Amino acid sequence: MLNFEFKNPTKIIFGKETIKNLSKEIPADAKILMLYGGGSIKKNGIYDEVKQSLASYQVIEFGGIPANPEYEVLVDALALIKKEEITYLLAVGGGSVIDGTKFLSSAALYTGDNPWDILEKGIRTDVGLPFGTVLTLPATGSEMNSGAVISRRGTNQKLGMGGPGLFPQFSILDPKVIQSIPKHQLANGVVDAFTHVLEQYMTYPAHASLQDRFAESILQTLIEVAPTVIENPFYHEAASNFMWSCTMALNGLIQKGVPTDWAVHAIGHELTVFFGIDHARTLAIIAPSHYRYNFETKKAKLAQCAERVFGITTGTMEEKAATCIEHFEKFFHSLGIQTKLSEYTTEYLGTAERIEARFIERGMLGLGEHKAITPSDVRQIVSMSY
Amino acid sequence: MLNFEFKNPTKIIFGKETIKNLSKEIPADAKILMLYGGGSIKKNGIYDEVKQSLASYQVIEFGGIPANPEYEVLVDALALIKKEEITYLLAVGGGSVIDGTKFLSSAALYTGDNPWDILEKGIRTDVGLPFGTVLTLPATGSEMNSGAVISRRGTNQKLGMGGPGLFPQFSILDPKVIQSIPKHQLANGVVDAFTHVLEQYMTYPAHASLQDRFAESILQTLIEVAPTVIENPFYHEAASNFMWSCTMALNGLIQKGVPTDWAVHAIGHELTVFFGIDHARTLAIIAPSHYRYNFETKKAKLAQCAERVFGITTGTMEEKAATCIEHFEKFFHSLGIQTKLSEYTTEYLGTAERIEARFIERGMLGLGEHKAITPSDVRQIVSMSY
Repeated sequence: MLNFEFKNPTKIIFGKETIKNLSKEIPADAKILMLYGGGSIKKNGIYDEVKQSLASYQVIEFGGIPANPEYEVLVDALALIKKEEITYLLAVGGGSVIDGTKFLSSAALYTGDNPWDILEKGIRTDVGLPFGTVLTLPATGSEMNSGAVISRRGTNQKLGMGGPGLFPQFSILDPKVIQSIPKHQLANGVVDAFTHVLEQYMTYPAHASLQDRFAESILQTLIEVAPTVIENPFYHEAASNFMWSCTMALNGLIQKGVPTDWAVHAIGHELTVFFGIDHARTLAIIAPSHYRYNFETKKAKLAQCAERVFGITTGTMEEKAATCIEHFEKFFHSLGIQTKLSEYTTEYLGTAERIEARFIERGMLGLGEHKAITPSDVRQIVSMSY
Repeated sequence: MLNFEFKNPTKIIFGKETIKNLSKEIPADAKILMLYGGGSIKKNGIYDEVKQSLASYQVIEFGGIPANPEYEVLVDALALIKKEEITYLLAVGGGSVIDGTKFLSSAALYTGDNPWDILEKGIRTDVGLPFGTVLTLPATGSEMNSGAVISRRGTNQKLGMGGPGLFPQFSILDPKVIQSIPKHQLANGVVDAFTHVLEQYMTYPAHASLQDRFAESILQTLIEVAPTVIENPFYHEAASNFMWSCTMALNGLIQKGVPTDWAVHAIGHELTVFFGIDHARTLAIIAPSHYRYNFETKKAKLAQCAERVFGITTGTMEEKAATCIEHFEKFFHSLGIQTKLSEYTTEYLGTAERIEARFIERGMLGLGEHKAITPSDVRQIVSMSY
């Protein structure tokens, strides 16, 4: 096990009818900016519930935060925060709205001239404007971590930020929110959380028995509940386990003491940039090829996963490992998610070379847990994903 | 899954050579009271390491906190805190020293006349004097939770306390500390953590798939590493997994969203009071009888545990459940821990009736996850444990 530090101060309020607890969590004299996305919360009743819980507060609203939260939109919210002297932010949404709110939390107290520097210069946020979240789309784990990814359309950049000041003070997780999520987005959420676990688990063995088993627990739970979540999102028990699994997949716990990979995310992101493919689906495209290409370094953990998650007890380590990758593909397919780039676009030829060139240009010369995956390796992984 | 709230702000600093990080965690102007137990830290080098890390601070010491931390001893430390105007507490020890420090954290800021009221009147601690810990004995989880149990010899009381103000600000977990722990205490630590998990898991099924699997993960890891931990505590990987399992067993995570039992602890405590049997060993005596006596309400989870933890795939639910209890006993025996009261004392006759009487007297009329275990049931459980 590697040395680690772990601290996660976010308060989780989980379960049925928990949105009404909002007012217990926010100081009575707060002036709140409520942030949300495209407006689905106005159709599914969550907007009304939140507003009702906040009846005694001064609340200003800022809607329209897009998927892949955009800097160009967020600067308008930042101006509003300053003009209205907002003291508390409330994100009502999924990962994009929460990530956007994290940027605003940081930028609101940033004393430099240009808030984009927080991202471009990688400035760590030690203290942010306090904020809470009401999660409406389980997937990213942003509701219980201190990281965010922000896009800037003008420069085609997508950069990460973080710091101990960016944990939500609280996050309300009422599983009923999944009832109004379209099936394809629920499937995306499952794959997103599943791949988050793989990025922190499918590396080389690090003698971290408990972390391994926790990671396997999340994979098993997602596999177990996914069919019900997608077919019957009104079933509370499946929704609860899905929601809590997504949070636990990326709240920092399972990555402590172990090596992590994240190459699938780095490569997959390019497919979103080029083709607009949903983030989760890019992960389903890249992950199997990534594990096949880096089979030697990952086969021990792949075989362990085959045994413990998929119950495969026969065959050599190599056979188990290969079967494990096939099981990942079958699982993604069972959710209606294709795993080949050519199933998403006819214009896939040349993608591998384009991504290789972009990684060279940006100095991304060593990915993965060994920092040994070169742009040339990336080209071959992407080719295998056609 | 039941509704829950979860917040755990303790910072964990885990791994090799981490004690030297102490000074990064405590404010430079702090006046520290360093608390420890019987002095084993002076023999194993931890005392010197801690003192060296604190070289730049004003440090006063208070040693001699006994196992089952006693109010009579702690009031002397409290007087010292007030006299010396201490601003920060540092517990260097196991669960007893940490629990004692939690009492002092609360009592130092308590404005009432009698600090025992915190325990007797169940006063919740919202803010305590800040404190950190250097864990020297993995077992209780106190290093990452906000509860404490304090004994008062004069009145033969043992009472719990807690509150959000009693999370350690940080806890340093260097697995090498187990190298100097006697084998029987290591065995106790394994059984203590193992039973902590059972108290939060061996109830009725609550459709909390992820929590179930996390609980099973801790049980499996403890079973896996226990032989190595006891035979070769110098092996870092086993020590690490043991230490982290003990923390995760009682830091609040696995009890969220599920019913909990804790009857084994309530009954086992009496055996410590009567016979001075080690806490962990009382749990090993009571748990098997408790599960046999309450077989009907627990058999579904016992069978699940048999399947997932012990790999028992054949037989009826009842057969699997019965086998699971036998496996618990075998595991305890493999650690050199006996599971019958008569193996600890020849004066066991009448114990069941005495405990029944004490439970009636103290109004403990309904134990367990259904609050349905009466003093008469307790008598029968204890009789079965002879």
